[in-house]
Amino acid sequence: MKRLYAVLALICAVNTLRAQAAGGDEEAIRAALTAQTVAWNRGDIPGFMLIYENSPETTFIGATLRKGYGPILERYKTAYTTPEQMGTLTFANLEVRMLPCSCGKVEFAVVTGNFHLERKAKGEAKKDDGTFSLVWRKGPLGWKILLDHTS
Amino acid sequence: MKRLYAVLALICAVNTLRAQAAGGDEEAIRAALTAQTVAWNRGDIPGFMLIYENSPETTFIGATLRKGYGPILERYKTAYTTPEQMGTLTFANLEVRMLPCSCGKVEFAVVTGNFHLERKAKGEAKKDDGTFSLVWRKGPLGWKILLDHTS
Repeated sequence: MKRLYAVLALICAVNTLRAQAAGGDEEAIRAALTAQTVAWNRGDIPGFMLIYENSPETTFIGATLRKGYGPILERYKTAYTTPEQMGTLTFANLEVRMLPCSCGKVEFAVVTGNFHLERKAKGEAKKDDGTFSLVWRKGPLGWKILLDHTS
Repeated sequence: MKRLYAVLALICAVNTLRAQAAGGDEEAIRAALTAQTVAWNRGDIPGFMLIYENSPETTFIGATLRKGYGPILERYKTAYTTPEQMGTLTFANLEVRMLPCSCGKVEFAVVTGNFHLERKAKGEAKKDDGTFSLVWRKGPLGWKILLDHTS
């Protein structure tokens, strides 16, 4: 099972890089979200976090507002302490909206969608369904999330 | 009382234009938010809505996701049918983050903050406190919100 996850993660990573190399921004964002669910579903929170900008400005709004990549990562680790509490994550109704700058550069985007967690155990985090909005920026490491609001 | 509101609204509008003319992007965004609360507090929903991009793509996520300036306006009108139901709106903990493009243009920003409604009556909308994240774009009409997520 672990080997299957590793293969899936590799396929996702290759797809992400391929989409980014081909300049397909929307495809790159969708591939990054798929890679994120694959990381989650193998219980890999640091892998799941790779989609966020590693910055003290990165913001997550859930039950409360958390600022900074480190505090967001720590919160995930505290709220989901076992693979059973993490369960299986799926996204639905994804809408990707690219936000080109008037100079022609495409470096920002917003994504809205729903999440669902299928799981047998719950820790501190109680929510299994919700709506999210994500603000993305294209930087040296590709498309990353700088603001995640999940409710 | 109505005259006082009109004077306050005028002062806010002048401040917004002045801030935008001076090139103070963060000041322009803060002035637009102040003007928005002034419009709300005089029971003026169309005035309150001026802060949003008048586009079918404009999105509001509250209890559900609503897309389009028209549907968002209609929802406000249905959810708050009297000035008593609207009450007095205040914002707190506002953080404005400018998102410059690599070409140097500053045309996007995100704002996070809290809202509080002080009121004596409730209609369809029950929430008096919450957290919001706003995505802004600077266009021909100045800084406008294209995505509002309130929870």
